[in-house]
Amino acid sequence: MPANTIDAMRALMAPRSVAVVGATERADASSSYVMKNLMRFGYQGKIIPVHPKAEAVFGYRAAPSLRALDAAPDVAVIGIAADKVIAALEEAGSTGVKAAVVLASGFAELDEAGRERQRQLVEIAGRYGMAICGPNCLGLFNLTSGAALYSSSLSANLQKGRFAILSHSGASAIALGNTARFGLSHIVSSGNSAATDIPAYLEFLASDEDTGTVGIVIEAIRAPEELAAAMEKMHAANKPVIALRAGRSSRGAQATAAHTGSLAGSNDAYRAFFRRIGIIEVPDMDGFMETATLCLTLKTRPVKPGVAIVGVSGGGVAHVSDIACEAGLSMPDLRPETVAKMKTLLPSFATPQNPLDTTGIVFADGQIYRDVLTAVSEDPSIGLIVASQDAPVGLDDFCAYEYLGIAQAVSDYAEAGKAPIVFMSNLSSGHHPAVEGKLSNVPVLRGTKSALTAIKSLIDQNRLVSWPGAAASDRKSLPAGALTERQAKNLLAAEGLPVPQQHLVTSADKAASAAAKLSFPVVMKIESPDIQHKTEAGGVKLGIASEPEVRQAFDAIMASARAYAPDADLRGVSVQEMVTGGVEALVGLVRHEPFGFGLVVGIGGVLVELVNDSAFDLLPIDLARADAMIGKTKLASLLEGYRGSPRADRQALAKLLVKLSDFAARYGDDIEAVDLNPVAVLPDGEGVRILDALIIARAKT
Amino acid sequence: MPANTIDAMRALMAPRSVAVVGATERADASSSYVMKNLMRFGYQGKIIPVHPKAEAVFGYRAAPSLRALDAAPDVAVIGIAADKVIAALEEAGSTGVKAAVVLASGFAELDEAGRERQRQLVEIAGRYGMAICGPNCLGLFNLTSGAALYSSSLSANLQKGRFAILSHSGASAIALGNTARFGLSHIVSSGNSAATDIPAYLEFLASDEDTGTVGIVIEAIRAPEELAAAMEKMHAANKPVIALRAGRSSRGAQATAAHTGSLAGSNDAYRAFFRRIGIIEVPDMDGFMETATLCLTLKTRPVKPGVAIVGVSGGGVAHVSDIACEAGLSMPDLRPETVAKMKTLLPSFATPQNPLDTTGIVFADGQIYRDVLTAVSEDPSIGLIVASQDAPVGLDDFCAYEYLGIAQAVSDYAEAGKAPIVFMSNLSSGHHPAVEGKLSNVPVLRGTKSALTAIKSLIDQNRLVSWPGAAASDRKSLPAGALTERQAKNLLAAEGLPVPQQHLVTSADKAASAAAKLSFPVVMKIESPDIQHKTEAGGVKLGIASEPEVRQAFDAIMASARAYAPDADLRGVSVQEMVTGGVEALVGLVRHEPFGFGLVVGIGGVLVELVNDSAFDLLPIDLARADAMIGKTKLASLLEGYRGSPRADRQALAKLLVKLSDFAARYGDDIEAVDLNPVAVLPDGEGVRILDALIIARAKT
Repeated sequence: MPANTIDAMRALMAPRSVAVVGATERADASSSYVMKNLMRFGYQGKIIPVHPKAEAVFGYRAAPSLRALDAAPDVAVIGIAADKVIAALEEAGSTGVKAAVVLASGFAELDEAGRERQRQLVEIAGRYGMAICGPNCLGLFNLTSGAALYSSSLSANLQKGRFAILSHSGASAIALGNTARFGLSHIVSSGNSAATDIPAYLEFLASDEDTGTVGIVIEAIRAPEELAAAMEKMHAANKPVIALRAGRSSRGAQATAAHTGSLAGSNDAYRAFFRRIGIIEVPDMDGFMETATLCLTLKTRPVKPGVAIVGVSGGGVAHVSDIACEAGLSMPDLRPETVAKMKTLLPSFATPQNPLDTTGIVFADGQIYRDVLTAVSEDPSIGLIVASQDAPVGLDDFCAYEYLGIAQAVSDYAEAGKAPIVFMSNLSSGHHPAVEGKLSNVPVLRGTKSALTAIKSLIDQNRLVSWPGAAASDRKSLPAGALTERQAKNLLAAEGLPVPQQHLVTSADKAASAAAKLSFPVVMKIESPDIQHKTEAGGVKLGIASEPEVRQAFDAIMASARAYAPDADLRGVSVQEMVTGGVEALVGLVRHEPFGFGLVVGIGGVLVELVNDSAFDLLPIDLARADAMIGKTKLASLLEGYRGSPRADRQALAKLLVKLSDFAARYGDDIEAVDLNPVAVLPDGEGVRILDALIIARAKT
Repeated sequence: MPANTIDAMRALMAPRSVAVVGATERADASSSYVMKNLMRFGYQGKIIPVHPKAEAVFGYRAAPSLRALDAAPDVAVIGIAADKVIAALEEAGSTGVKAAVVLASGFAELDEAGRERQRQLVEIAGRYGMAICGPNCLGLFNLTSGAALYSSSLSANLQKGRFAILSHSGASAIALGNTARFGLSHIVSSGNSAATDIPAYLEFLASDEDTGTVGIVIEAIRAPEELAAAMEKMHAANKPVIALRAGRSSRGAQATAAHTGSLAGSNDAYRAFFRRIGIIEVPDMDGFMETATLCLTLKTRPVKPGVAIVGVSGGGVAHVSDIACEAGLSMPDLRPETVAKMKTLLPSFATPQNPLDTTGIVFADGQIYRDVLTAVSEDPSIGLIVASQDAPVGLDDFCAYEYLGIAQAVSDYAEAGKAPIVFMSNLSSGHHPAVEGKLSNVPVLRGTKSALTAIKSLIDQNRLVSWPGAAASDRKSLPAGALTERQAKNLLAAEGLPVPQQHLVTSADKAASAAAKLSFPVVMKIESPDIQHKTEAGGVKLGIASEPEVRQAFDAIMASARAYAPDADLRGVSVQEMVTGGVEALVGLVRHEPFGFGLVVGIGGVLVELVNDSAFDLLPIDLARADAMIGKTKLASLLEGYRGSPRADRQALAKLLVKLSDFAARYGDDIEAVDLNPVAVLPDGEGVRILDALIIARAKT
């Protein structure tokens, strides 16, 4: 039976009856917190304490066991120690309880016995089709119904609203839930999230009418396909999802033999995945708060990326404009008609531009501010207006009064204005309450950097999920053992990737006749699975122009390689067509579970780590995506014909990316990473050639 | 007579008597704001309204003119229109008034007449030795004495304290002064700062016993030498200075013919200057607030860069650690003794490391938290502890109570602990007031990114001013007209910079004999002041290996250049020694007033803009600074011997930087920029060679 069906999730998130297993009045027991929270927040469903001996707990009539009940409750909160949890869950499942909250710690986070316990928990959830919050969690709280299945203190100041928080971390959920910035529909602290994780919660919230926006605090993703599917439902319901990920740095770029690994760490993989499925990733808690406020309050989404910044001080808007540039926002010039209109509204010494300094005149007459906003909003390049106005919290009421006209003008504008508007303080301590009080219909954001970054991320948000997952097709296996460059190229060539012609030879004579089949000059490289750094081993000769040189090169390469690595398996020399000219690119694959492979493209050659130019995306890559990736790199400028060199065959490079994506679908099980460096991108129409290739086999476990 | 003497500054900033010129009770007049502010904030000095006809203003007996007074007041606030200001200042100066505040706008910010007015104001200040705040300003406020020479509303909530704000922007001063985060000694909104600018205010504040830390909001620096001198006094007084600069992006990297310009914009120059004189630059207003709080409250400066992060949640400290890495903080591993001590303090499932998750046990027993802090502080690698604890403002008092034990432990630790400590909220909305109330002896910071960046900038702060200014020595002049590469190299060579041998020839015969004097191969380049892009003009041939090739090359170069630029002045061909091998560096100079020249060094060659690797510093550069600059670049790894190539002569490159710095001291007046690209850095001991040089002459005005 599948766990986490919509019925099971409803039983968990919006229960009509709650059994508290292990209920007691002992103050330090988690079950007593749950009982008290249910009472304090006025839960109207049925509350059933379960205790083997007690007659009643906090005045509620107790049952000796779940089995003793006439009807199964929607949810059982398991408030007993870890070693008794499995038996309790088994009883719940077998009596038809569809959902449980397991509060105890002592599961996979602790030790091997705990991991075994957690495996049993997951098995029970699957067997009975249960949704289970936890284990090792604080629990969850439905603010609409008061179902506070929550084992710690909950603030009486929490307000109902349309934001839901899902968190792997209990502490973060408390911090983000109690800022008094907005109201909440649900708080879920899901702990180990063993059987029921963020995708299942999102599926429920997509159809939950109390929830408009969801914020998640996530430590790891286990099932990207499920998260992608849940995001499709969230987008369909027009509900944004914001994510803060903890533990980014510890998952930094890996040190691997392949360049690709050093260019793209698992952080890039997470970021690419979030972007691909349309989750808005935020950098920190402040970013979380501003993005949440923006999503909850903005009337309509901006339909154009252009942002106008409006303020009352030249120095002030200059500063905001600095940070807007750093955040990557586009601030288009105002069109002449808008400038002309401004000249009729503002004093002669004003300079109408974007960012716009209205001058202090608007303090005296708020109508001017409103007219300015209207004129700006009618400029066809403007998709959103940022009204930048500090009115610090420490002002006395008299001083704060001076800002009310501007606040009112913004609020009035927002009622009918063409472009959505945001009111922003440069101080993250925010606005004076009297000023904020005028602006209930406008997102009121705090902190220049966090606010503008939130706006940028909303503008950039992708709302079309395209995540087929790491699909396999027509699987093939790699030969056993380390692959030489020549073997790697042959494998790639067999899948249609363009490599130069090459022949393996074992004598100077054979080398000469192989070279004759190609045209001079040729390249010769040592063939050995034991020599990774062929150049350092003296194992590479380029530009060999004649038969005598070929013979000489064969002997020299074999001698150098033998001297460099006396015990290496030297299989001969590979004689290769020499490709000259073109732009050097790097193309690579790197494995990042649970997402499968990421693909990297950027400037290639020996300086690749120094240049540090790359674009990253997860597989699969189609032609449009491949071309977009190339467009994000500095390589793109080289391909255009840098400093007088001819335009290179970008289209062929894009096709190579797609073919490498297909290659991964076929051989992925056996591969850890692939480095194609350099790939020569020849002049337009002449295609690409893989000049060196390294395929790193996956360690078999 | 010098303006801004310490006496004049004292008269301005701490006046014992104030004349308000143009005083009136008319509510919208700036002078009436000044009168009312003086009364409201209990100014105890003498208040003298000056008005030609009034008997009294707000009950203060008026004088008809400054001249009519028995004794000159310390300061005259000039509250009349711009066109009458000069006459009033002349009267003030001639009657011995040492300081003035000019509120009116209508000066250099407006038009040519205003610029003339401002010139007169500066002249009067110089002639009478006056300090003048403004024009076009809100004025200043001494919170200790109540001298509120301020022409706008001042909040009654402002508290006295040890922070002084100096701002070119009035709006920013209001925003930063009214956050209720800390008390103030002075607020100065100095507007155009025509005669008295930030250096003069800092000189006063360095010896002002009410001020401990200064925050400046700066739009431009006009006299770097004066600011450097003032900073020496601030450092001597152990008073940190924080700067927020508005208008960074508009002063972004210039597009010039020289690479150096595109690598180093004026923003880099400002940043280098601030770093050099020990001003802590902050990125935005939030950074300003956290850095100010840190400087004002931290008991002792950290003496080691290592930071320990301590919190009660694994996910929480992981997130803080992510941001700490992004901010560049060093988080050393704890030594085994510290780890062992932690194991005695914390539960068995805790993992003692840095960042340190104490687990929730500390909620129950604050003493454990205090013992943990003490143990961490005794680790020799730890210079500062960040206690990361959210306790959001929205909590009810009951929930907030749970955090008080931790807050108390931090406060207790701070009294005697070995390493300074900071208490930090990940939310920039801050901590619950009950929690913050326990922590008056500890910096309480808000917002992970802003707080950790503030800590990093304090750790990095340079406190030794080394700013001799852009010294000139033994000035020489450039020849008139555009310089060819050969001429540029000759000039450089004459100052001891290493260039390859070169000969200008005007025929194929002369080319052949010039080449014979060098050794083959040689390089040949077109010599023309009109051809900047010699390669594109077919004007460069490398690796010419024989006399016949030299003759052929001469003819080919002349023909190509003629075809490329039919009207160019072709002066012949330069035959040059060919330098092979080595690492390609770029070295350049770019003018950034008012600081003089900046020097850039980084990876050179044709891909220089793509690689985007450079270090920047202002001149003069000595050998230690030159070597440090090289050490900051990716070039440094190339010089070390990248991928098996020999170690290059970094020392010789550093000497080249110093010689170029000397070159600028000699020719600086005539130069706009210099590009040496590439400079070949040969193997260790073989020195460097400037392979191409471009000197861009300064446009004469």
